[in-house]
Amino acid sequence: MGKLGAPAFCAKMPGWDVCKGARDAVCKNYAFTDFKTAWAFMSASALKAEQMDHHPEWSNVYNRVDVILTTHDADGVTDKDLVLARFMDELAQKLA
Amino acid sequence: MGKLGAPAFCAKMPGWDVCKGARDAVCKNYAFTDFKTAWAFMSASALKAEQMDHHPEWSNVYNRVDVILTTHDADGVTDKDLVLARFMDELAQKLA
Amino acid sequence: MGKLGAPAFCAKMPGWDVCKGARDAVCKNYAFTDFKTAWAFMSASALKAEQMDHHPEWSNVYNRVDVILTTHDADGVTDKDLVLARFMDELAQKLA
Amino acid sequence: MGKLGAPAFCAKMPGWDVCKGARDAVCKNYAFTDFKTAWAFMSASALKAEQMDHHPEWSNVYNRVDVILTTHDADGVTDKDLVLARFMDELAQKLA
Repeated sequence: MGKLGAPAFCAKMPGWDVCKGARDAVCKNYAFTDFKTAWAFMSASALKAEQMDHHPEWSNVYNRVDVILTTHDADGVTDKDLVLARFMDELAQKLA
Repeated sequence: MGKLGAPAFCAKMPGWDVCKGARDAVCKNYAFTDFKTAWAFMSASALKAEQMDHHPEWSNVYNRVDVILTTHDADGVTDKDLVLARFMDELAQKLA
Repeated sequence: MGKLGAPAFCAKMPGWDVCKGARDAVCKNYAFTDFKTAWAFMSASALKAEQMDHHPEWSNVYNRVDVILTTHDADGVTDKDLVLARFMDELAQKLA
Repeated sequence: MGKLGAPAFCAKMPGWDVCKGARDAVCKNYAFTDFKTAWAFMSASALKAEQMDHHPEWSNVYNRVDVILTTHDADGVTDKDLVLARFMDELAQKLA
């Protein structure tokens, strides 16, 4: 699991930002058509997260899903976050 | 809730077939990339079904989801099935 | 839809607190055994929310689910929040 | 992954039956209070299945979930089916 750091992650991943605050983390706000579509996104992402044993910090209000990614064991942003973020971005694009 | 019947339904809806057996019902077999995508499809469709209080008979094995629709109260295929089927078809197309 | 207000809601509902901040809202933090159980909770609650057309603001990290309830149209806590909260509390108790 | 066979599986697991048909498989029919509860069951079981990379054949109508388990690679019922079945039984008991 390679350590990347939030700035290097964001340079690779359009739409992702370095999280505010002291810790090394990245965040993205997704907006979908409605709650059903947001939930489709979260349901498949939940499977990916459990499979990777790497879980997001995420919040949802109706059509919006805000995601924060970091790797607790590494105390910062790693390749694992990149894999999960790419999964989420690809899925969100399909559901748009 | 207008009664349609399975043949009229299938005339409108490509990919749907009249179910085998005595009752008036329609069915379709969806195939997705993998289990995660099938699950995204089922999760949003579950919300639609519960909202409509109109639930499919469906089965799933890995990437496949087989759906049967009929309206029990009407003893056959109705407008409600059309609404749910259109939701599912549109979502499946996005996830393809 | 009867307006209740956050303090009256919390007097009825153990474990719920008046939210910090200017608006009239209530919040509760649920903790489950693991992510799978938290996700069972969220998945059934999502169906209830969509059925009521009344959606929570909620966030999840692994086994924790933090919920904020308020009724936007009423600019405060109402009977709708009570119905959703009771659903969530009953489900969480089963899954404990 | 130890091969068990359907009869040995069913001797250990109350409520499970040897599937009809030529292949070595086991099945169980779960009934829940309503669709929401059935969906909570399926949502957590989906996470377990994806994590194990071992997926059920299952169908759902409203409050009912019918599950068939077998291990394709082993051409019969194995320890993997036992692990997934135990997960499902324990969860179903909580949700009853």
